Amino acid sequence: MPLVFVLNGTNLNMLGIREPELYGTKTLDDVRNLCVDAGKEFGFDIDFRQSNHEGDLIDWVHESHHAAAGVVLNAGALARTSLALFDAVVAVKTPVIEIHITNIYARAAYRPPSYLSRAARGVICGFGLDVYPLGLRALHGILNSAEAK
Amino acid sequence: MPLVFVLNGTNLNMLGIREPELYGTKTLDDVRNLCVDAGKEFGFDIDFRQSNHEGDLIDWVHESHHAAAGVVLNAGALARTSLALFDAVVAVKTPVIEIHITNIYARAAYRPPSYLSRAARGVICGFGLDVYPLGLRALHGILNSAEAK
Amino acid sequence: MPLVFVLNGTNLNMLGIREPELYGTKTLDDVRNLCVDAGKEFGFDIDFRQSNHEGDLIDWVHESHHAAAGVVLNAGALARTSLALFDAVVAVKTPVIEIHITNIYARAAYRPPSYLSRAARGVICGFGLDVYPLGLRALHGILNSAEAK
Amino acid sequence: MPLVFVLNGTNLNMLGIREPELYGTKTLDDVRNLCVDAGKEFGFDIDFRQSNHEGDLIDWVHESHHAAAGVVLNAGALARTSLALFDAVVAVKTPVIEIHITNIYARAAYRPPSYLSRAARGVICGFGLDVYPLGLRALHGILNSAEAK
Amino acid sequence: MPLVFVLNGTNLNMLGIREPELYGTKTLDDVRNLCVDAGKEFGFDIDFRQSNHEGDLIDWVHESHHAAAGVVLNAGALARTSLALFDAVVAVKTPVIEIHITNIYARAAYRPPSYLSRAARGVICGFGLDVYPLGLRALHGILNSAEAK
Amino acid sequence: MPLVFVLNGTNLNMLGIREPELYGTKTLDDVRNLCVDAGKEFGFDIDFRQSNHEGDLIDWVHESHHAAAGVVLNAGALARTSLALFDAVVAVKTPVIEIHITNIYARAAYRPPSYLSRAARGVICGFGLDVYPLGLRALHGILNSAEAK
Amino acid sequence: MPLVFVLNGTNLNMLGIREPELYGTKTLDDVRNLCVDAGKEFGFDIDFRQSNHEGDLIDWVHESHHAAAGVVLNAGALARTSLALFDAVVAVKTPVIEIHITNIYARAAYRPPSYLSRAARGVICGFGLDVYPLGLRALHGILNSAEAK
Amino acid sequence: MPLVFVLNGTNLNMLGIREPELYGTKTLDDVRNLCVDAGKEFGFDIDFRQSNHEGDLIDWVHESHHAAAGVVLNAGALARTSLALFDAVVAVKTPVIEIHITNIYARAAYRPPSYLSRAARGVICGFGLDVYPLGLRALHGILNSAEAK
Amino acid sequence: MPLVFVLNGTNLNMLGIREPELYGTKTLDDVRNLCVDAGKEFGFDIDFRQSNHEGDLIDWVHESHHAAAGVVLNAGALARTSLALFDAVVAVKTPVIEIHITNIYARAAYRPPSYLSRAARGVICGFGLDVYPLGLRALHGILNSAEAK
Amino acid sequence: MPLVFVLNGTNLNMLGIREPELYGTKTLDDVRNLCVDAGKEFGFDIDFRQSNHEGDLIDWVHESHHAAAGVVLNAGALARTSLALFDAVVAVKTPVIEIHITNIYARAAYRPPSYLSRAARGVICGFGLDVYPLGLRALHGILNSAEAK
Amino acid sequence: MPLVFVLNGTNLNMLGIREPELYGTKTLDDVRNLCVDAGKEFGFDIDFRQSNHEGDLIDWVHESHHAAAGVVLNAGALARTSLALFDAVVAVKTPVIEIHITNIYARAAYRPPSYLSRAARGVICGFGLDVYPLGLRALHGILNSAEAK
Amino acid sequence: MPLVFVLNGTNLNMLGIREPELYGTKTLDDVRNLCVDAGKEFGFDIDFRQSNHEGDLIDWVHESHHAAAGVVLNAGALARTSLALFDAVVAVKTPVIEIHITNIYARAAYRPPSYLSRAARGVICGFGLDVYPLGLRALHGILNSAEAK
Repeated sequence: MPLVFVLNGTNLNMLGIREPELYGTKTLDDVRNLCVDAGKEFGFDIDFRQSNHEGDLIDWVHESHHAAAGVVLNAGALARTSLALFDAVVAVKTPVIEIHITNIYARAAYRPPSYLSRAARGVICGFGLDVYPLGLRALHGILNSAEAK
Repeated sequence: MPLVFVLNGTNLNMLGIREPELYGTKTLDDVRNLCVDAGKEFGFDIDFRQSNHEGDLIDWVHESHHAAAGVVLNAGALARTSLALFDAVVAVKTPVIEIHITNIYARAAYRPPSYLSRAARGVICGFGLDVYPLGLRALHGILNSAEAK
Repeated sequence: MPLVFVLNGTNLNMLGIREPELYGTKTLDDVRNLCVDAGKEFGFDIDFRQSNHEGDLIDWVHESHHAAAGVVLNAGALARTSLALFDAVVAVKTPVIEIHITNIYARAAYRPPSYLSRAARGVICGFGLDVYPLGLRALHGILNSAEAK
Repeated sequence: MPLVFVLNGTNLNMLGIREPELYGTKTLDDVRNLCVDAGKEFGFDIDFRQSNHEGDLIDWVHESHHAAAGVVLNAGALARTSLALFDAVVAVKTPVIEIHITNIYARAAYRPPSYLSRAARGVICGFGLDVYPLGLRALHGILNSAEAK
Repeated sequence: MPLVFVLNGTNLNMLGIREPELYGTKTLDDVRNLCVDAGKEFGFDIDFRQSNHEGDLIDWVHESHHAAAGVVLNAGALARTSLALFDAVVAVKTPVIEIHITNIYARAAYRPPSYLSRAARGVICGFGLDVYPLGLRALHGILNSAEAK
Repeated sequence: MPLVFVLNGTNLNMLGIREPELYGTKTLDDVRNLCVDAGKEFGFDIDFRQSNHEGDLIDWVHESHHAAAGVVLNAGALARTSLALFDAVVAVKTPVIEIHITNIYARAAYRPPSYLSRAARGVICGFGLDVYPLGLRALHGILNSAEAK
Repeated sequence: MPLVFVLNGTNLNMLGIREPELYGTKTLDDVRNLCVDAGKEFGFDIDFRQSNHEGDLIDWVHESHHAAAGVVLNAGALARTSLALFDAVVAVKTPVIEIHITNIYARAAYRPPSYLSRAARGVICGFGLDVYPLGLRALHGILNSAEAK
Repeated sequence: MPLVFVLNGTNLNMLGIREPELYGTKTLDDVRNLCVDAGKEFGFDIDFRQSNHEGDLIDWVHESHHAAAGVVLNAGALARTSLALFDAVVAVKTPVIEIHITNIYARAAYRPPSYLSRAARGVICGFGLDVYPLGLRALHGILNSAEAK
Repeated sequence: MPLVFVLNGTNLNMLGIREPELYGTKTLDDVRNLCVDAGKEFGFDIDFRQSNHEGDLIDWVHESHHAAAGVVLNAGALARTSLALFDAVVAVKTPVIEIHITNIYARAAYRPPSYLSRAARGVICGFGLDVYPLGLRALHGILNSAEAK
Repeated sequence: MPLVFVLNGTNLNMLGIREPELYGTKTLDDVRNLCVDAGKEFGFDIDFRQSNHEGDLIDWVHESHHAAAGVVLNAGALARTSLALFDAVVAVKTPVIEIHITNIYARAAYRPPSYLSRAARGVICGFGLDVYPLGLRALHGILNSAEAK
Repeated sequence: MPLVFVLNGTNLNMLGIREPELYGTKTLDDVRNLCVDAGKEFGFDIDFRQSNHEGDLIDWVHESHHAAAGVVLNAGALARTSLALFDAVVAVKTPVIEIHITNIYARAAYRPPSYLSRAARGVICGFGLDVYPLGLRALHGILNSAEAK
Repeated sequence: MPLVFVLNGTNLNMLGIREPELYGTKTLDDVRNLCVDAGKEFGFDIDFRQSNHEGDLIDWVHESHHAAAGVVLNAGALARTSLALFDAVVAVKTPVIEIHITNIYARAAYRPPSYLSRAARGVICGFGLDVYPLGLRALHGILNSAEAK
């Protein structure tokens, strides 16, 4: 089964504690289980990680170049501020799918737009934790259609 | 089976002709079939429409308030310029999901950001025609979780 | 009795349903009655219309050039985005009064300012449905003072 | 009869002298008479004042909190530049109606938008001196509908 | 003889009435005759249309893809605000020439720049009604040089 | 004991009445007492004033040049709009400390940034009425360290 | 001899104390003498005033309409922030000349441009206290050339 | 026959060498011949010049005031950056027509808009070298219609 | 005694070396001692840390959620650029106080405003190292007043 | 007698022809005479020049470094666009006074602000041709006060 | 031999893999060898490092204060987004030279300008890998000229 | 030996006089000698020129197309304002290297960014006169690597 990285950026370790009216009460462990289940549905091995260090996320995206069939990436606020993470996504051949639990386009105006969206294959946001299985399904579609060529 | 509107806005009747390197070679009829098939997977009756008139899209969103369980909306360029369509989405109780075939955040800078994203429940873009079944799956998740409450 | 057009733009057919905390619970039929009553007070025949199509509003403003003594216009979101409607108001000799149920200057920052205000004779907003009779009274003042010259 | 403050800000003492093609040839005394007459129509005692000092206007708005049923406020240029006057309006329970003789949205681009409009209950502008009686009528509507609750 | 669409957008039906100091006193019927005459000079059949509905203009541009050798398009204010019309022009293989009666670059600053100009083959503006025959001559040059290859 | 001016600008006379969820229910008299108490802690005589007139605040800041050891200044909205008050602070040798009851950096985006902060020795905001004693303590530190040199 | 108002705005009472490296060490009394001397050279009676209250400056500009042949106005920072003072200058028939001791176009970028310059007959700045006699000479030229007509 | 100046600005001497995919392979000598031929069609003597010096173009525009019936001006990049050339066009009574080989509105965003367009009688761009005869035809129309008056 | 985190971000390890005219000649060890002393005054145990890694600061803010009564945070330049750190502060229940040694509002214009200020309970800056004990006193006030409820 | 350069930039050779309602009907020769006369009043030999070439103006400013006691410079539109001329003024020790016939701060918004004003010793504008003798008088004051030191 | 740090930031470990049409096919090991060779030419010991962690780069710049004669710094995207790295460069006495393989001023507009350039001694970019030896030569010049003083 | 143009733009003839604390005390003749010496090191014949006329620089860049192997260009302020010079660099096949004596990215904010940098092969700035030999070395690298292909 192809290996898929599900990468989580800044503050996602606080799921369940952080602004529950926005992010819900489930924890990052619940998300991991959700992803493993969805991985089974789409035929993926899931490597699920989280870090609050931009450098770790860049390293992991680089690692995916040789090690993974695709990346589902919830970068948190780094999506909006890290041009370096954007460059990392451009630097690898792996398809990278940007997801966000909340609708990032309906958030406060002082949040700058996402750099990451310019480099990602596609974007899914606003559906709560359901963005994780939706991201894996989208990746499944990309890999299947690439294979079909 | 609940009825779902799949609404298509400006220039989507030109699918297959319009910039095929961006939008692919499939036509809007292919998209309709894709949606009907996905509707079967998720238990939805599909009402599939297209118009180049902003007023028609507003009328249809209003119609969904009483007539549909949800809306999957590819508004085309109107997503970026029609504050009136944004207001229509805010005006109805129906959950509305914004989709786009291309990654709208990676397009040219002279295109303004999407008003619609501020009102939509969530956004999916950049996965080619696959955004239609992904949108229907996201709607399925929303309706199920609402039901579960 | 002089004929006055009371024209309503996008989403005003949703009055009573749309964000009642902002727009109240009365419907567009109630507004029509309010206008007919105020028409009696000021000596106007009222022609009351609504459309979600920008083109209809432009056509009606043009029609007023020959057919009406004045226009009270609640263009909804089109006031902010339709330069073409602005041009229509400039193109006719009829005095056009811009009204809005809510205080449009106190709304969210992502809403652009009203083009229409640059072309309208005057603006009244923020008094709920009372803006309709206020608009008719303002028109009454304009027509009387023009007559007096 | 309830007492209503009609407050006039900077340069309104120059009515009749100042740019008569924009502001007309009537003086502030004429406006006072117009307001007293309209006050009779709507059942208001009128307290009519003018000052070129921002501080006076702020003091008078504060005074209205305990002393008046409502305020009709033509702040002149201070509407556009005085955040302190905006704060004064927010600080009191009295309904405050912003009026302007000219259509302030059709003026030169170097004039910043009105802060005051964000705090006022509603705005009326562009109808010449008729904005004073229109403002009093709007206030009449607000007080009656509050009473009716 | 090849068929050419001469398409007119918002407010052009008001020619002769609308701001005559800017747009002159000739009517749209006069323009039609001017185009038919110029069509004879350049060997074109002319299909001359006008609408105040953005959707009609989009439909007509689409129609040109199969039905016309070229389009001369005076979109009025929609040139500046309709990204959807811009997309329609990009979507078709027909050469589209943007014309305006007035010099659109010398107009008021609150008018945004033309989206349409980014998609049109070329732009002609500021020469009064003469822009119609100039547009047809420019199209004649494009079609001849394409043929010559 | 050195004399310290505690100066209060626009709308601070409305403390206790004005938006109590933001500013609390204590009045300006309570604040005066708080300052007198803190003055005792830090060895200051307190001269406590308030005005809604920008000119008074400028005059008082000038007066401090010869008459006071320091100024704790809550200018209210004038901090954000009065370049003249900024210039007054630059013009005097007295150390001036800017305080605000609310966190002025977390307020609405239409409020411009504080001019005053560029001229003040330091800024303290967001701690409710506690900003007054904090400001006096900060001034105490400045005067002591100046003395120590 | 015609009467000329020399009006000084905010912080000019601090001349000699305020940033002497920018504004020099002479006081406002020295400036008054300089103006009286220059008045003799150009045949003017000088009425020399200063206030830190915007309202006073507005009142004085109004007063000049009937009482003075011209105004030389050093408004200080109010030149840049007071739209109301700008309106006062527009409201009177008296020629008003804007002066500043420093070159206001070479100052820090956070200082907004001068509103006053849009209304003043002309502007003189950057020549130290010499701008006062230069302003009186410029006024002398204006009055003479008006007389000559 | 009336004399017409065809003036070419910066870098147009490089035609045929400069970015041939944008500007084609014909040289400025070819353009001169094209203009002489078109001059015969419209009854103009052609004075054809080129310079890379802004000052030369300004001098030539001034010269046209007394010496030419009209100017067709391809200013190259100076159209976008030379306010002085704009002023020269405003300063003369000669009608000046702005032309550009490429569609200047579809070029990169770092290119500022054309100052020249604000002063020119009209603008023609995007039709390759055909803009020269189109410009001469437009001038022919202007001169004829002026004569007819 | 309640535990308080005093967290220092980027470049604060260079205190004493870095721009001494701005930041003084004391080192971070001196600051630690200052905080321990102030901790004794206010009854706090102090946990004093520094890192140049954004991720460490985020981790420590998270840690405070369960481990500390409050946080005094000098984030250095990260206050202005790290939206992720802002999100971390929003994510925890601990009160966080932003401090800066210099007056960050008087620094160069290319420095963007502080994100952190939007999330912090309050801000203290510009008083040199004294901001550390002032921050602890402010925290003391917050904790006492919370307790009192 | 010290030598003073009076330098005139782009389009000033067109005085008397160019927009006479703005610039008057006198010619550049009249201005030269005016300057020679004023030179006699202030004890200056006048070297009066004009060019439409930015390079000439830069050369002349450089020349003044060794050859002139001061420069009165009316750069025309180059004041607003030529950073190179600004640099030339900064490069020389000669005092340079910027003058303009019209009030450049009251002109259209598309005209960028003057670079030159940042480098000039002072600015005089808006007094018609009188700005030339005013500029010479201002220079006289500068040279005298320098001498007095 | 003096020790020089050659520091590489985010994504430079991907050289040879990352966008080879922009960055070439050589790897970071090749760059290290290039630097060691150039070090021999200029008499430097080279300490060559790379990290994707902003914190590491800040630590290394700090380390250079005591440990290195100079720094050649290719910060990658962090040059454009890290104000903290900018502060680190300002904090140390070591001369720091900014280099980039591509011409960073010719890149896409959504990339913000480089903060780092404001703090670096100088900048070299756009010459491919040759920027490394060029940077070392520039450093050689700085150290020699400092020594010569 | 290949011929290389070293071109100097506006104000560089003032080297040694102009702001010596920024540009040093060496003259342009010294720079010429520096370039001739460096030319010997890299095997180039040097053609060294300076002009304050934008048109001359454009002509010389054009001349290089046939006459030179490369250009080292210090355009001075024209780099930032001359789109025409930018176009000239794009128009020729010669590699052009942009140099500046000072670090142009650390200069005042009112200086716009360099157009030239978008067209130049690479940029070197901030190393004083050493940027000339560095530019020649960079050119040497480009020509050698082109030859090697």
